[in-house]
Amino acid sequence: MQKPGLPKGTRDFGPVKMARRNFILNTIKDTFQLFGYQQIETPAMENLNTLTGKYGDEGDQLLFKILNSGDFLKKVESKDIEAGPLATLPKVSEKGLRYDLTVPFARFVVMNRNELTFPFKRFQIQPVWRADRPQKGRYREFYQCDADVVGTDSLVCEAEIILMIRRVFSQLKLNDYDIKVNNRKILTGISEAIGEAGKEAPLCVAIDKMDKIGWEKVKIELAERGFADQSVEKLEPLVNLDTDLEGKISFLKEFLASSEVGLKGVAELEEMIIILGQMGANLDHVDFDILLARGLSYYTGAIFEVKVNGVSIGSVSGGGRYDNLTGVFGLEGVSGVGFSFGVDRLYDVLEELDLFPAESLDGTQILLIHFDQKGLDYALSVLPKLRNAGIKAEIYPDSAKIKKQFDYATKKGIPFVGICGDVEIENRMLALKNLESGNQESMSIEQVIDSVKKN
Amino acid sequence: MQKPGLPKGTRDFGPVKMARRNFILNTIKDTFQLFGYQQIETPAMENLNTLTGKYGDEGDQLLFKILNSGDFLKKVESKDIEAGPLATLPKVSEKGLRYDLTVPFARFVVMNRNELTFPFKRFQIQPVWRADRPQKGRYREFYQCDADVVGTDSLVCEAEIILMIRRVFSQLKLNDYDIKVNNRKILTGISEAIGEAGKEAPLCVAIDKMDKIGWEKVKIELAERGFADQSVEKLEPLVNLDTDLEGKISFLKEFLASSEVGLKGVAELEEMIIILGQMGANLDHVDFDILLARGLSYYTGAIFEVKVNGVSIGSVSGGGRYDNLTGVFGLEGVSGVGFSFGVDRLYDVLEELDLFPAESLDGTQILLIHFDQKGLDYALSVLPKLRNAGIKAEIYPDSAKIKKQFDYATKKGIPFVGICGDVEIENRMLALKNLESGNQESMSIEQVIDSVKKN
Repeated sequence: MQKPGLPKGTRDFGPVKMARRNFILNTIKDTFQLFGYQQIETPAMENLNTLTGKYGDEGDQLLFKILNSGDFLKKVESKDIEAGPLATLPKVSEKGLRYDLTVPFARFVVMNRNELTFPFKRFQIQPVWRADRPQKGRYREFYQCDADVVGTDSLVCEAEIILMIRRVFSQLKLNDYDIKVNNRKILTGISEAIGEAGKEAPLCVAIDKMDKIGWEKVKIELAERGFADQSVEKLEPLVNLDTDLEGKISFLKEFLASSEVGLKGVAELEEMIIILGQMGANLDHVDFDILLARGLSYYTGAIFEVKVNGVSIGSVSGGGRYDNLTGVFGLEGVSGVGFSFGVDRLYDVLEELDLFPAESLDGTQILLIHFDQKGLDYALSVLPKLRNAGIKAEIYPDSAKIKKQFDYATKKGIPFVGICGDVEIENRMLALKNLESGNQESMSIEQVIDSVKKN
Repeated sequence: MQKPGLPKGTRDFGPVKMARRNFILNTIKDTFQLFGYQQIETPAMENLNTLTGKYGDEGDQLLFKILNSGDFLKKVESKDIEAGPLATLPKVSEKGLRYDLTVPFARFVVMNRNELTFPFKRFQIQPVWRADRPQKGRYREFYQCDADVVGTDSLVCEAEIILMIRRVFSQLKLNDYDIKVNNRKILTGISEAIGEAGKEAPLCVAIDKMDKIGWEKVKIELAERGFADQSVEKLEPLVNLDTDLEGKISFLKEFLASSEVGLKGVAELEEMIIILGQMGANLDHVDFDILLARGLSYYTGAIFEVKVNGVSIGSVSGGGRYDNLTGVFGLEGVSGVGFSFGVDRLYDVLEELDLFPAESLDGTQILLIHFDQKGLDYALSVLPKLRNAGIKAEIYPDSAKIKKQFDYATKKGIPFVGICGDVEIENRMLALKNLESGNQESMSIEQVIDSVKKN
């Protein structure tokens, strides 16, 4: 008899984990909807020609490929095997599993461009799959949770992203966090200002490692990437800049005076701040991080990244503005801005800070228990009254020792037990026991409903 | 430039379809939770040794297999290719995509048997994948929506399944449908009573085709399957039985008088009806169908199937009791009862009957529109007030012609538009236009909140 197991890097979500994940996902979903974003879903499988070439060579290798159904060897000859997997792959596989939600979204926009209403605000919460080496906190199947608005350049969208992040965090009772913001144009401007115009891509890659390896090693990397010593020197005042938002902005206006695009970036940042003010919002949690780059050359405007302070977990949210979502599929000029929440990381943060509310379990509120057949019969008659009042209610379905029934409630985290003893049956009542406080009181069904609802 | 497409048999769900699907799924989910079922999720991928051999030879062929990552040809030799796909498969693939939710659930129960609280009531709503030939209403990726309770033989569970089905249908405003119920033991009893003991499996297979091919052809099939003429003759009064529930039960008590198991089946059915009565429920929509078999030899007790009348769509829900969920994974004695909803079919039914409520879209309730920068600025200041009141609200993010902004609201199905003209700005009001009725009235923000909420 086989002993069943799970594929490496995948997980089951049992009832408690599932309820906690739903608590996070529902919070995010409610927020997206409050801001007018609409949910879509795309298939788990995409044609390989939709996926390959979009994530770099490394990404292509991490795609899970699906074997063609039927005789998958149909097109394969011995010489293919000798030529190796790269030559054989196109003959045995035409489909792969979704690697992220961005490429499927781009495909969706292109295929539905005539039906969609632009600006199109969509969110998408689905698993993605990557054949990465599994390790702590890194899985081969994990959920992504993306929101994007495409078809507008309005900086209102950027301001709203900040508001959405703040709403989600406030609902999750997370108070100590930073929303780091920057603008890709500022990074481009910096590369111009230091005399290395056009080299913002390697500049970003190196700067992105600042947190991990520090300025001294970034300097070495910049030199290796062909940055002149005097250029790197010009960066120094920026790296050492220790001032507030306004200070940073006035510094940059001078530093970037010679760079049109750099000044544009600063202006965009300022406009976003003005819009936040018009919406009655302050700059709490907003941290202008001039060196924030997020590795991706993909972004062309605003860049966001959110970190929770005091925990050992990396960024839990991030995103930015892009110019060209769909060019790779032949549709030019679709610009937009998007961000995503890392659900697994948010889960770990809430767990580490012990912030999951007990009621987030969304489970049964009361279990009816009984001593004998008469009690079971009575419990059956009470049950629909509770459920009709909207109370999540269960009956212990078998005749069993009362301790076993109590254990069931305790293990399942059910807060109340309704005991159906002879006295209660006679008076059409329940003995309601609060399993946390230990209090027990006999009361009418109406009173039970009130007590359970009030909890 | 490539023109992007979708893999055969898969679908995107755009905003409207998605909202409608969520309307159905949330109704089902709420009902499961009201009855104490807890949600779990399992990975999309399972080890092939978990999946193969569980769905018959045909099922094995319909499994989507995942190519091993890295050099998937590592273990393959030329002679494997010559030996064909069956010989090569184990060398290139170790994982497959979930084919249903039952086998992953069985694996989950076995792997977590020491942590779970029994009776364990779980529900699971996830996509499954089958390499079936795509056709109308049949997809290669579709959602299943299962609820099972394992670890109890109590017929309370069967009664509650009927109540859950009725609650879901009532919430979906579906009124004309039948919940067909039967019991596998009755079918076993019938095979005994007609003198073909032990042949209930082929009997069920043939009887299951009654709806499709009719009694005359079922008779031929039974003969082909080795049933004696006189046995088939004995079935005749059953097939022609035209009476109500009580009539059927008294008929069966006589018909099955010689079959212990058959009488047990009738007794179980009667007890389920008694429990329904104790729970204050009538037998509305319940239809005892003595010939209901649902093809599956898997069931050992109650059998359910739900059909909506007046539509061209097959069964939308079904299930039954089983004795041995996990034996195949080495854990004996796990009995339970489960059922599932066919989400795609329910969607088609609601569409055919035009039962999707407009508010099921769960979309933006009001769009703020503006004539100029001053109006946009004002709209930005109003927006957070609406959202803080829980209203899903948007601003048209760009300066644009007023018609374009109205079009956006119309196309997105937004019921209200809040116009920010000079007079409104001066008086800190909005001109609220109901896009359905065409009514427009200037009012304070508080009045807007009331009006939108009341809608």
